[in-house]
Amino acid sequence: MVAKVIDGRWIAKEIREDVAKQVSKVKKEYGFVPNIATVRVGSTPESDIYLNLRDKACEETGIFSCHVDLPENASEEEVVDAVKNLNEDDDVHGVLIQLPLPSHISHDTLISILHPKKDVEGLHPVNLGKTLLGEEDIVPITPLSVITILDYEKTKYEGKDVVIVNHSNIVGKPLSALFLNRNCSVCVCHVYTKDLKKYTRNADILVTAAGVPRLITKNHVKKGVFVLDVGIVKTKEGVCGDVDFSSVKEIAGKITPVPGGVGPVTVACSLKNMLKTFMKCVGEKHR
Amino acid sequence: MVAKVIDGRWIAKEIREDVAKQVSKVKKEYGFVPNIATVRVGSTPESDIYLNLRDKACEETGIFSCHVDLPENASEEEVVDAVKNLNEDDDVHGVLIQLPLPSHISHDTLISILHPKKDVEGLHPVNLGKTLLGEEDIVPITPLSVITILDYEKTKYEGKDVVIVNHSNIVGKPLSALFLNRNCSVCVCHVYTKDLKKYTRNADILVTAAGVPRLITKNHVKKGVFVLDVGIVKTKEGVCGDVDFSSVKEIAGKITPVPGGVGPVTVACSLKNMLKTFMKCVGEKHR
Repeated sequence: MVAKVIDGRWIAKEIREDVAKQVSKVKKEYGFVPNIATVRVGSTPESDIYLNLRDKACEETGIFSCHVDLPENASEEEVVDAVKNLNEDDDVHGVLIQLPLPSHISHDTLISILHPKKDVEGLHPVNLGKTLLGEEDIVPITPLSVITILDYEKTKYEGKDVVIVNHSNIVGKPLSALFLNRNCSVCVCHVYTKDLKKYTRNADILVTAAGVPRLITKNHVKKGVFVLDVGIVKTKEGVCGDVDFSSVKEIAGKITPVPGGVGPVTVACSLKNMLKTFMKCVGEKHR
Repeated sequence: MVAKVIDGRWIAKEIREDVAKQVSKVKKEYGFVPNIATVRVGSTPESDIYLNLRDKACEETGIFSCHVDLPENASEEEVVDAVKNLNEDDDVHGVLIQLPLPSHISHDTLISILHPKKDVEGLHPVNLGKTLLGEEDIVPITPLSVITILDYEKTKYEGKDVVIVNHSNIVGKPLSALFLNRNCSVCVCHVYTKDLKKYTRNADILVTAAGVPRLITKNHVKKGVFVLDVGIVKTKEGVCGDVDFSSVKEIAGKITPVPGGVGPVTVACSLKNMLKTFMKCVGEKHR
């Protein structure tokens, strides 16, 4: 048996079409569209690629995307001021902080001063706290895209053995909360894990976001597992994920490819969150 | 080999003495002591016992503890108003919401309206979010007491295999974040877990808070494991935990008994958090 290969581009298209419908509805109702600002300090080729993809998706769905570009050598104070200005600007309905940031700028600081209602990425402590509590409101984008794919595949969660390879604040920790909220048994592994195989072989659902090409081989997985590959690394042979796709797909039940799997869904989920912050901003004004 | 039995009462005494010293110091500095309010709606014999223990500990350390008692049939609005009054009262430096609450009162609602700086239990979304992000500030009391015991035993965390049997908002989810912040591999199990033994047998550190007497037997554990038993149930034979103590202690490396293990440390950690909220309240005033 060969795994079903998940078409992330198709799922992303469905989400984008749904967002576009809602945007045209709010445009009629309020007379304007969501206006989302991305704060960028310096730039890298990778962040430029991602930003271009997102901007294109915004354009297609009718969301207005603007950039606040600061130079690589901007002080933290200057970036903080830029975020504060966006907080106070009623014409801005959502803010993203583009990663990577220069090392002298703290991402945590920027996120914590951002108004929670404008926090498109769902990373403000109060939004993360709600995610942990099961009051999922603005959920971090990558975890949201993983759950979105599983939901599209009508996955039953209760009692499933889930393994996540990543324990970052942006992916592993909030994603673990999402699975616990759905009554899965959840293991979180990472670079310090003694015996990764011991964990991954037990997984019904395996999410990997290590950024290590071919970390997960056919020896790491159980027959029928649903593999979601969040890793994206540029190698000489092109973009590849954490999973040795050709061997793992012989054993897995379902698998997301790289590219064309989780990535496009992540972009689409960021649009969903933009619409959410918009509704919070205009909802408050019209109360 | 028989496990080292952890003396929770001794650890609790050490913490209480340390808190008492700090309270007498702040009394000299500010001229007053922390004043902590517990909101209670109706009462149960169990909550009364716990509250009495905490009040006694407060008295011993010089913290002033007061109760805001509302009748069992109080409306949610009345309880919300009581919490709002405590938020605004500058003479109150911390608030706890006593569980259990009557079914018509939402614990989440009360916690979310409580001012984060007065949230002794560390359960407000913003405090939970910070815990998840590794900015551990006011940490939920039971998870804090587990980590406190492990710290007292000079536990090395990095790479350890941790299993938590509980996925509640108060225990399992925040505790899982604390272990991930310390680079452990973390599995969270619960009543929906298919094969509990499969998980627990792999644990270097096993924390159980299921409230199911003798759930964990010698067949569930690996030699040398550190077992922390958070479960407390009253049975005909007396108070007992989740762990079949007499058989598990033959295999474990270290083990907390019930009673006299995690329980007293939890009470002591609540005092530590009271002092923390006090410092936030008076610190802000004196800035």
